[in-house]
Amino acid sequence: MEIAGVQAAVGVLSSKWSVAILAELSGGTRRFNELLRRIDGISRRMLAATLRRLEEAGLITRRVYAAVPARVEYDLSPAGSALFAALTPLSGWALQHRPEAA
Amino acid sequence: MEIAGVQAAVGVLSSKWSVAILAELSGGTRRFNELLRRIDGISRRMLAATLRRLEEAGLITRRVYAAVPARVEYDLSPAGSALFAALTPLSGWALQHRPEAA
Repeated sequence: MEIAGVQAAVGVLSSKWSVAILAELSGGTRRFNELLRRIDGISRRMLAATLRRLEEAGLITRRVYAAVPARVEYDLSPAGSALFAALTPLSGWALQHRPEAA
Repeated sequence: MEIAGVQAAVGVLSSKWSVAILAELSGGTRRFNELLRRIDGISRRMLAATLRRLEEAGLITRRVYAAVPARVEYDLSPAGSALFAALTPLSGWALQHRPEAA
């Protein structure tokens, strides 16, 4: 078990909205306002901050189209897709063992 | 994808030493001082606090033997073992994609 690596992955995922954003982008390319509409309860500020953090971690890509107003699209990077896939067993675990302290 | 459940699991794992303690207990029953010796850099206070948190989350069990001094043994619970197993893909991911921000 690559403990430091797992801790690094958990670290990136631990900000409240990371998993929800990765899940939403696993459904395909999304624009900022689409993400804002589709993720219940997230604020514009939190969405922008978490997207920046996921981008810095190399888990999502951001494409800016030179249009007025500028068009910005987000996608999972290959590393982001692989991380999302690696979360599937955690989802199965959560369904069965949801920790009392959650 | 059970997003809330994955976030709950990530939440429990996000305290710095959780993954290291689960990994150590995946090797079998351990006493407090064994854990203290085997986990590099952890303080007595952090070990006690993280063990309490993992116990509250139902991921580890604690057995106290009526001896003088009291003997206390820790083990993974079934839910803890299942969670540790669910982390294996994350370990594989980390080896391949270690997030730059880690």
